[in-house]
Amino acid sequence: MKIIHYRDMKPDQVTGDGVTGVTIRWLISADDGAPHFAMRLFEVEPGGHTPLHTHETEHEVFILEGTGAVWRSGEEVEIGPGTAVFVPPGEKHCFFNRGTAVLKFICMVPHS
Amino acid sequence: MKIIHYRDMKPDQVTGDGVTGVTIRWLISADDGAPHFAMRLFEVEPGGHTPLHTHETEHEVFILEGTGAVWRSGEEVEIGPGTAVFVPPGEKHCFFNRGTAVLKFICMVPHS
Repeated sequence: MKIIHYRDMKPDQVTGDGVTGVTIRWLISADDGAPHFAMRLFEVEPGGHTPLHTHETEHEVFILEGTGAVWRSGEEVEIGPGTAVFVPPGEKHCFFNRGTAVLKFICMVPHS
Repeated sequence: MKIIHYRDMKPDQVTGDGVTGVTIRWLISADDGAPHFAMRLFEVEPGGHTPLHTHETEHEVFILEGTGAVWRSGEEVEIGPGTAVFVPPGEKHCFFNRGTAVLKFICMVPHS
């Protein structure tokens, strides 16, 4: 059993097209023996966002802190602490920080 | 895409041997079209706990609020907001609320 506080893991900057001010921590991954899916913690700076993109794997997201929006079919839907988001496989999505504090969420994804 | 606040879902009492003061909300499940795994939100009352049990599916847990402990190999390990717990398949586990406020966590599990 792995028991870890997210602050005890070093964040890595997320790079690539369409990403601004985003870090990731891989809290649980295949390296831990997780057989099916991984848990990552993302932090998005005020004004930052993840890429507007799509992929074959689904996301299951839970917002921890901060306020922002998720892109859904061309419109932005508000998100905040306690919001759960299911992004089905192949659906375009993007997470924006629209607030003044860090937007923090965990995102689970099946191993690719 | 499903976007929902956990408070907008009704909690169900968890019943069964070895469970005390626990509710569950299924935030994302196979009914939503989630292909691989589900997200549930648990609330454990002060003094309450989940069953000490084992099963073939893994758990990936993230603590949101409250303080408590997880049973690991016969000892209790403290948990609190920001703690991630990976319970491998077949490993015995139990989550205790050892604080004075509700212990709240999300728990992902593959579909059985």
